[in-house]
Amino acid sequence: MSSVYGKNIIVSIFGQSHSNAIGVTIDGLPSGQKIDLNALSSFLARRAPGNSEFTTKRKEPDQPEFLSGLLNGMTCGAPLAAIIRNTDTRSGDYSELRDIPRPSHADYAAEMKYRGTQDVSGGGHFSGRLTAPLCIAGGICLQLLSQKGIDIAAHISAIAGIRDTPFDPVHVNRSVFMMLQSKPFPVIDDTSALNMQNEIRKASQSGDSVGGVIECAVLGLSAGIGDPMFDGMENRISHAVFGIPAIKGIEFGNGFFGASIPGSKNNDPYYIDNKAVRTKTNNHGGILGGITTGMPLIFRVAVKPTPSITLRQDSVSLSRMENVTLSIKGRHDPCIVPRAVPCIEAACAIAVYDALLDSND
Amino acid sequence: MSSVYGKNIIVSIFGQSHSNAIGVTIDGLPSGQKIDLNALSSFLARRAPGNSEFTTKRKEPDQPEFLSGLLNGMTCGAPLAAIIRNTDTRSGDYSELRDIPRPSHADYAAEMKYRGTQDVSGGGHFSGRLTAPLCIAGGICLQLLSQKGIDIAAHISAIAGIRDTPFDPVHVNRSVFMMLQSKPFPVIDDTSALNMQNEIRKASQSGDSVGGVIECAVLGLSAGIGDPMFDGMENRISHAVFGIPAIKGIEFGNGFFGASIPGSKNNDPYYIDNKAVRTKTNNHGGILGGITTGMPLIFRVAVKPTPSITLRQDSVSLSRMENVTLSIKGRHDPCIVPRAVPCIEAACAIAVYDALLDSND
Amino acid sequence: MSSVYGKNIIVSIFGQSHSNAIGVTIDGLPSGQKIDLNALSSFLARRAPGNSEFTTKRKEPDQPEFLSGLLNGMTCGAPLAAIIRNTDTRSGDYSELRDIPRPSHADYAAEMKYRGTQDVSGGGHFSGRLTAPLCIAGGICLQLLSQKGIDIAAHISAIAGIRDTPFDPVHVNRSVFMMLQSKPFPVIDDTSALNMQNEIRKASQSGDSVGGVIECAVLGLSAGIGDPMFDGMENRISHAVFGIPAIKGIEFGNGFFGASIPGSKNNDPYYIDNKAVRTKTNNHGGILGGITTGMPLIFRVAVKPTPSITLRQDSVSLSRMENVTLSIKGRHDPCIVPRAVPCIEAACAIAVYDALLDSND
Amino acid sequence: MSSVYGKNIIVSIFGQSHSNAIGVTIDGLPSGQKIDLNALSSFLARRAPGNSEFTTKRKEPDQPEFLSGLLNGMTCGAPLAAIIRNTDTRSGDYSELRDIPRPSHADYAAEMKYRGTQDVSGGGHFSGRLTAPLCIAGGICLQLLSQKGIDIAAHISAIAGIRDTPFDPVHVNRSVFMMLQSKPFPVIDDTSALNMQNEIRKASQSGDSVGGVIECAVLGLSAGIGDPMFDGMENRISHAVFGIPAIKGIEFGNGFFGASIPGSKNNDPYYIDNKAVRTKTNNHGGILGGITTGMPLIFRVAVKPTPSITLRQDSVSLSRMENVTLSIKGRHDPCIVPRAVPCIEAACAIAVYDALLDSND
Repeated sequence: MSSVYGKNIIVSIFGQSHSNAIGVTIDGLPSGQKIDLNALSSFLARRAPGNSEFTTKRKEPDQPEFLSGLLNGMTCGAPLAAIIRNTDTRSGDYSELRDIPRPSHADYAAEMKYRGTQDVSGGGHFSGRLTAPLCIAGGICLQLLSQKGIDIAAHISAIAGIRDTPFDPVHVNRSVFMMLQSKPFPVIDDTSALNMQNEIRKASQSGDSVGGVIECAVLGLSAGIGDPMFDGMENRISHAVFGIPAIKGIEFGNGFFGASIPGSKNNDPYYIDNKAVRTKTNNHGGILGGITTGMPLIFRVAVKPTPSITLRQDSVSLSRMENVTLSIKGRHDPCIVPRAVPCIEAACAIAVYDALLDSND
Repeated sequence: MSSVYGKNIIVSIFGQSHSNAIGVTIDGLPSGQKIDLNALSSFLARRAPGNSEFTTKRKEPDQPEFLSGLLNGMTCGAPLAAIIRNTDTRSGDYSELRDIPRPSHADYAAEMKYRGTQDVSGGGHFSGRLTAPLCIAGGICLQLLSQKGIDIAAHISAIAGIRDTPFDPVHVNRSVFMMLQSKPFPVIDDTSALNMQNEIRKASQSGDSVGGVIECAVLGLSAGIGDPMFDGMENRISHAVFGIPAIKGIEFGNGFFGASIPGSKNNDPYYIDNKAVRTKTNNHGGILGGITTGMPLIFRVAVKPTPSITLRQDSVSLSRMENVTLSIKGRHDPCIVPRAVPCIEAACAIAVYDALLDSND
Repeated sequence: MSSVYGKNIIVSIFGQSHSNAIGVTIDGLPSGQKIDLNALSSFLARRAPGNSEFTTKRKEPDQPEFLSGLLNGMTCGAPLAAIIRNTDTRSGDYSELRDIPRPSHADYAAEMKYRGTQDVSGGGHFSGRLTAPLCIAGGICLQLLSQKGIDIAAHISAIAGIRDTPFDPVHVNRSVFMMLQSKPFPVIDDTSALNMQNEIRKASQSGDSVGGVIECAVLGLSAGIGDPMFDGMENRISHAVFGIPAIKGIEFGNGFFGASIPGSKNNDPYYIDNKAVRTKTNNHGGILGGITTGMPLIFRVAVKPTPSITLRQDSVSLSRMENVTLSIKGRHDPCIVPRAVPCIEAACAIAVYDALLDSND
Repeated sequence: MSSVYGKNIIVSIFGQSHSNAIGVTIDGLPSGQKIDLNALSSFLARRAPGNSEFTTKRKEPDQPEFLSGLLNGMTCGAPLAAIIRNTDTRSGDYSELRDIPRPSHADYAAEMKYRGTQDVSGGGHFSGRLTAPLCIAGGICLQLLSQKGIDIAAHISAIAGIRDTPFDPVHVNRSVFMMLQSKPFPVIDDTSALNMQNEIRKASQSGDSVGGVIECAVLGLSAGIGDPMFDGMENRISHAVFGIPAIKGIEFGNGFFGASIPGSKNNDPYYIDNKAVRTKTNNHGGILGGITTGMPLIFRVAVKPTPSITLRQDSVSLSRMENVTLSIKGRHDPCIVPRAVPCIEAACAIAVYDALLDSND
């Protein structure tokens, strides 16, 4: 059940970097929902490579073909399936990839699991390319959520330790969302953006890479969504988000920082605001007991630095069981954080939409 | 599906703080596995309150009664069920609890979800008391894992910002585990422990509370366990761990820190160590591509400060829709981090054991 | 995942015939639903043994204790758990039961699966006694369905080849349901009932047993419930119903008979009846394409004759691997069909209610 | 979750009769398993139309394209996806199809569920054409089972009441299987075959249709596979088999007939046969307590007559809410039973293979 997510909608992702196609099926989408394919293309373009100097120069048009599930631009109740053809051919010799695992890639773990039968070319099913079908599913969920007044946006919260202004957890609003989604490099504070880009450039020039943090917010969720214990919003979102390669941490609201301050500072007092119940602060990130409170849902994820670096690294030959050095060739993103931003929105949207379908009783 | 976890074993937790009993069923346990009930009691005792000056004085013997699934001390293939009687009676007037939500408790979210029908006394199904059946299930999984050479231990990594020595991610071993499990206050560095306890005492005396960080390690996992994308070890463990109240963040390996350093520093080079493949560092926390690498699996979780503080707080009356102040009475743990340590081990054990049962093909 | 059923509600059944208790948890019940415990007791009494000369004389009071999930007679959103204590003690010598499998009982299959570790006393987890917790869950679902205008009833359609008048598939109504539920031996045609009882008596006197067929109908389902392919009403109901021991077949609407007649006779023409669409006949049993049509949902199940007979039978000694003869002692129902009637209603109710919760979008 | 099946493997079917493609994803297949694509094509050809005078003349080459999951003819651990392009274009006017439901088709139920948003052309997702991807998944499972010594075959047990010789439930063997699979019209007794074909011809000439019964057997299953209660072999197989359109009943072993005979006749005595435990008869159909006994697993399903007949039928106009008559045009199989035979084998194979993957503990 490795690449399947969800209870009310079942998202099933398939494909390898160099297989004939990659794609996704979504079972359980309510019928009669309008899907704007142009808006979906724009969303997918935010994830696509080749957008800027900071991403790999590979060209992937990534236009999905919809095989089923849509009729006259609306969901028709049948499972939706969409694929993206892989244009890279599986050529060349990949025997070295099997033998010498790249540090901090999935190569070694996959070899131990699949014992030589896995598809290693281009990273196989572990390739970041598999986030494209994730973004198809997530892009659709984003639209369905938006039709219900629920919006999701993320920004680069940090790269290489350079921090952006965080979302205001109480007052974050849709004009901030729109501003971010209009930027090719989605950062709130433009000066931070320049400093981050500088760090990426430096890493790139030295054959190295950098990671970062992405912050994501959900607006418009009413209170009462999610369930106690294992189906809380934190469980659901983290379960989905760790499906994106390179994510190594997640925190909600005040997260790890909240663990260092006293309860009197971390607790969020309630007050009546224009006949509605709100909290004065939002250290809880919009979730208590796994259930939404109606405040903005906010979380951050840690994205590790791209493991593909051109600097020489130590590794081993699995066939000869001896130490070797390895130098990874080819063009790789020195920082995948910008392209991971829409992926986080997508994973979050799938989790939130699936939770929302639970809440009709 | 809120309080149900797992695929190969199905853990289903039930009960409210003041219902007749709390308990758990575990479906799918392999038959013929020996369960040491004394060892299980000792494990549960680590979670129980009243162990020290730092926990609530309430006495909960928390001795589980096994209703089914065991025969002559062994699993018999039938679902295992165990309950713990609640001795606290549901007395007194809880109408205020429904009306005035305690800041950063689940009260308000639950009220919005269940509209007055939920059981509020003692926190109902949201009570930390529900971690007792979680620890029954987890304690059983810990034993079953241990029989396969897999051990799990956690320690208090920080309280109120005071840090313990972290696990050595490469060399952490079972003697450290045993040392920790023998301590009522499981911290590696005894000086840190004293400082942490000081912070708890200060918080307690001022009617406040403190949170902290727990670090957990799994030893003995062979490489190749877990699955790509949504059934990776990070997905599985986080899905389980967020089932524990007060957890607001999780990070694996280098986690958020790893996001701030370059790839050349975060990557873990491989080498041959006594005919085995290992990594020199373990920034990946034993997981790559969702799959174990055979290195220690390491993660940390953020535990927010106990929301129940006696200091006066702002809240609202939901019935009158007006601002009020609230002062929580009764005895509460000024810091639940020590008691959460075995809960984290339990949740981790359930997730790891469930993943392991996938890996038989 | 053997004893767990459902998607929107998760029913988890536990216990062995002679374990401390048997019971059930139900996760996901909507909160605020009134449960009438007296009505539930009456429903459970219909399954209980000792009601008539045709059932075993064992006394099982089978009064469930509710451990959680209810507050002031209503569901409270937390998982509901209920247990029934086993008063039979696990005494005596069961070594023969392990060694000499009873023909057409689960003994041999269980021994091959669990290799001696299973609980054999009283049939263990395979005992018909486990239908008591099924009936608790089902009885609750029956009440929740009834509150939505959906009612379920079953009758003995045949015993030992003696047939009852079948339900009129088009005009079956609630007065028939009430008449059946008032009878200790639920048969429409009283003459058939006498003939059936005669057959049971004859079988009992000769140390033999008889089986039969149960027909079940669901009234009040609107059109459009259920899903195509694997989540159709036939899939869901059969998945649940085969959870009852001794069921060996199920057919919907015209079932096997429909397979022998031409399409022109089996097709159900539509017509307008008082501004509603109905079918003139109901050979489809209220389900087309897995989805309800609004006509009565009707199915029949085959119940095999009780395998426990006192007549001498051939079997084998598994330890000595030689042929032996076996004579089963103790009191057993010569026919379990009457007691299986509420069990079929229960399993059907669980499946239908779970499907209904899907249909809120 | 309508078109998704399985626990260890997740089979997800998509497509509509006239969408761009139909297809299937299979998640969770063990890696390194050889798939013989030629053998798979031969299996799919048995389901394809146009094979004989008894099936529709439509030509569907139905050659699947594998998009992912295979490498050098072996499973690679990544989800397998395969599609079949639809060459029929969605042309013409389907408004009548929406308005006037065909008796005993899914049209009306679907309209009530999807309220005009469903894809009606060619039957949409309810089309029998969707059994092609089911057969891709099932054909792969058949191969994987066969590699483990487990074989599955089905034959036409009856058409229009004309019966074939049943499988000998004790001695059915692989030579019977091979004989059946070599026949375009898979019937054991050739005289019965001629009579059945006569009935189909007569129905076809009179604009009518006929249904039938299919009997399926599984050989090579060891004892101990399957689980008690809801994950027994009967539950799993019926859950899968009702995914095939037109199936209205299923019975295992003696099924409904067994319900009419006494226990002394229906019970299957054990004996030692060449150092193995076997039963002298096999009225239990190889399953007791949901678990295999090692005897041949045998079941039968009822296939209703094709609802598409050219004879004039009564129906209604949903828009005008008035009675109308309907005459279905186009070419339709007067009997789908022959083509359903491999579909039953496929559904059974998916269920059995999924159960087998559970049994590794």
